[in-house]
Amino acid sequence: MAQKPSIPKGTRDFGPLESSRRDYIFGTVKSVFKKYGYSQIETPAMENLSTLLGKYGEEGDKLLFKILNSGDAFAQVDPAMLSNSNSLSLKICEKGLRYDLTVPFARFVVQHFSELTFPFKRYQIQPVWRADRPQKGRYREFYQCDIDVVGSNSQLNELELMLIVDEVFKNFELPVLIKFNNRKILSAIAEIMESEDKITDITTAIDKIDKVGLDEVKRELIERGIPATAIDKLVPILELKGNNREKLQKISQIISTTQIGKLAIDEVEELLSLIENSGIESSIELDLSLARGLSYYTGAIFEVKAVGVDMGSICGGGRYDNLTGIFGMPGLSGVGISFGADRIYDVLLSEGKFPNTTSESVKILFSNMGKSEVAFSLSIIKELRKRGISCEIYPDETKLKKQFDYATKKGITYFAIVGESEVANNSITLKNLESGNQESLTKVQCVDFFGD
Amino acid sequence: MAQKPSIPKGTRDFGPLESSRRDYIFGTVKSVFKKYGYSQIETPAMENLSTLLGKYGEEGDKLLFKILNSGDAFAQVDPAMLSNSNSLSLKICEKGLRYDLTVPFARFVVQHFSELTFPFKRYQIQPVWRADRPQKGRYREFYQCDIDVVGSNSQLNELELMLIVDEVFKNFELPVLIKFNNRKILSAIAEIMESEDKITDITTAIDKIDKVGLDEVKRELIERGIPATAIDKLVPILELKGNNREKLQKISQIISTTQIGKLAIDEVEELLSLIENSGIESSIELDLSLARGLSYYTGAIFEVKAVGVDMGSICGGGRYDNLTGIFGMPGLSGVGISFGADRIYDVLLSEGKFPNTTSESVKILFSNMGKSEVAFSLSIIKELRKRGISCEIYPDETKLKKQFDYATKKGITYFAIVGESEVANNSITLKNLESGNQESLTKVQCVDFFGD
Repeated sequence: MAQKPSIPKGTRDFGPLESSRRDYIFGTVKSVFKKYGYSQIETPAMENLSTLLGKYGEEGDKLLFKILNSGDAFAQVDPAMLSNSNSLSLKICEKGLRYDLTVPFARFVVQHFSELTFPFKRYQIQPVWRADRPQKGRYREFYQCDIDVVGSNSQLNELELMLIVDEVFKNFELPVLIKFNNRKILSAIAEIMESEDKITDITTAIDKIDKVGLDEVKRELIERGIPATAIDKLVPILELKGNNREKLQKISQIISTTQIGKLAIDEVEELLSLIENSGIESSIELDLSLARGLSYYTGAIFEVKAVGVDMGSICGGGRYDNLTGIFGMPGLSGVGISFGADRIYDVLLSEGKFPNTTSESVKILFSNMGKSEVAFSLSIIKELRKRGISCEIYPDETKLKKQFDYATKKGITYFAIVGESEVANNSITLKNLESGNQESLTKVQCVDFFGD
Repeated sequence: MAQKPSIPKGTRDFGPLESSRRDYIFGTVKSVFKKYGYSQIETPAMENLSTLLGKYGEEGDKLLFKILNSGDAFAQVDPAMLSNSNSLSLKICEKGLRYDLTVPFARFVVQHFSELTFPFKRYQIQPVWRADRPQKGRYREFYQCDIDVVGSNSQLNELELMLIVDEVFKNFELPVLIKFNNRKILSAIAEIMESEDKITDITTAIDKIDKVGLDEVKRELIERGIPATAIDKLVPILELKGNNREKLQKISQIISTTQIGKLAIDEVEELLSLIENSGIESSIELDLSLARGLSYYTGAIFEVKAVGVDMGSICGGGRYDNLTGIFGMPGLSGVGISFGADRIYDVLLSEGKFPNTTSESVKILFSNMGKSEVAFSLSIIKELRKRGISCEIYPDETKLKKQFDYATKKGITYFAIVGESEVANNSITLKNLESGNQESLTKVQCVDFFGD
């Protein structure tokens, strides 16, 4: 095999440095999730296609990776079926790779309902797969990192998610802006516009306002058949200025003539009061143009942006009143938020926010200058490891230069030279590879130096 | 959809308790791996089938999960191909799910050779998939947990792997027996038996001795065409008794007439000396009947068993001299060991070795008895979380009984009752749900109680 091996397009290998940085991200979010009482679950990479199909729209169905049935998948296939690729694929594939963590979560809740404690607060950090066209920042395999609580209508849950976002990004030392809105406001607006039947079109169009601007949104609304008089009612709302309370008051004047509008105002008012008394340090903005693409949201919706960084949202989520309905269990309300691990990675990298320790885990490398020197070193290493100090010994007896290089490349700060004379003196020569300083230490001094 | 949703056979959901226990296992092994200087890598779930096929034998090829090409997979398929299921599946599937972590690791090393620091020490903890017939303890999706070092011939690496095993299971408080052998001993034995060409048959048969006993191994050897005279030479070796040094001496007398035998004895002697001076606390046994099934091993081989537990090996591995050869890069020696996460889970569970903390992460639940009470509680919760204390507030205003139950089911020890009178007195009533004791604490007292 002469050709260099490769991996499927849109997938990635993560080497030591990337993995340790990803570990830092996952470790940080996990510790916060746990502090707020969220428990981890894991679901299989493969789900039955009957679980996945029809949950992500027609476009989503096309992006599912299907797995060929094992055994003779073609035993029952009639040659005539070859002309209908779609139905044939369902004949020979019963399973698919999960497309997101939300649908498997809903499936999990319904399947394990009687074993769970409600309100059920879970987090889940696992890869998902989409047969999307790969491009910059878009992969066919990527991690999602979701927290959800189901079985409670209280907006204390919405507050909690915002507190978690606040704490996660404080830990990352990354200032963020948390935008929120409520789908009921959008429903009320659609009613005012006399376009209730076009709510999905309106949401989809508004959702792009950050990327394409107001004029383009207007153009798209016209294209989608919204009358100009209706659009004239919408635009002033999207342009509302002021602080959160001022915006709430203005929108209230517009939509509280409708029943859904009254409900919306009550919900936003309640959440805003909770936020104001919460001590959240991140900026919070009621953004009436925030829509979120997904159709299952029914209440509060969120998006999080890194302040001063030119990038889309790094978290997003909202409340859904009927997610488990697709699996025959209606009326279980939930709210959740998803952390975009890849984007968070890119932001932390570009802003220089990864701590140095993520790339340097080994403290000290011992040289290898022969058998008796190694035996001497191993006795020190044993003591260091007992104290939790990460250390290594170079496995091969080779030129010191090569051993130095190994330490430098791995970002190891200290190199312990142990040759014949060190063994004779019961000591080591410890070189700091950053400063270049070196000193002679006894065994005990060495253990104390690192072990304190 | 009336039917309860389900997951593909052979796969599993992991709920909160199982996930936290698995997290405990992975967290423990990771911290030890890092301490010894191993770096994490991650590879994609999907590999090109060209990477996977032919690496696991004919049987293994059949157990690969293949992924249907996206787009119109059948565009180029001729109806005549339907009769040849195997070649058709390769026409419509370019990718497969990884079958183990070893082949993707070899592929990774070759693909990223110039970016890596050698000797390259990596760990990798990821799921693998096999279309095996599911049965008790055998799943179609399971995690592997591998450490390997490539680019070094030194047996200090073998020692290091044993030290890691020793430390991991000391952390689990699970006494283990580490068995080892050397493939060169088996090669020498085959030479003595004048059956060098049957080395794979011999290895495969011996490998089962623990499960089926000596008589059955003999029967299988005869079946595989090994002459009775040869088997007569083998049996006394498999029955060698004594301590490690005694066994080494006896086998040395038998095989050191051959070149490979001399090499074998030197290697085992060297490793045994390293072990004897290492302070390893686990029992170490030179087991001359240890064979390991995989054909790519060329030097030391290991297996680890939990002492006093009736279960197969929970770790296994060995040295391979040419793993990357299959990807066009010969001569890179490596040694590795794989931790069997599922079996370790089962042993820790049956031996009662999981710490209680894995199932109880939240310290305190605050009651929800109305808006002003919640506002008061949130101010205390904020202080507790600042101090890293995991706590929750029940999101809905409902019967206290229900809130109690939630705490009990989630294994939360403390329940903080905050009603009208508590708010008036600027205090909480803290109930220990284990002892039943309750006491009144001021805000400050409460924070001190948990925060110290």
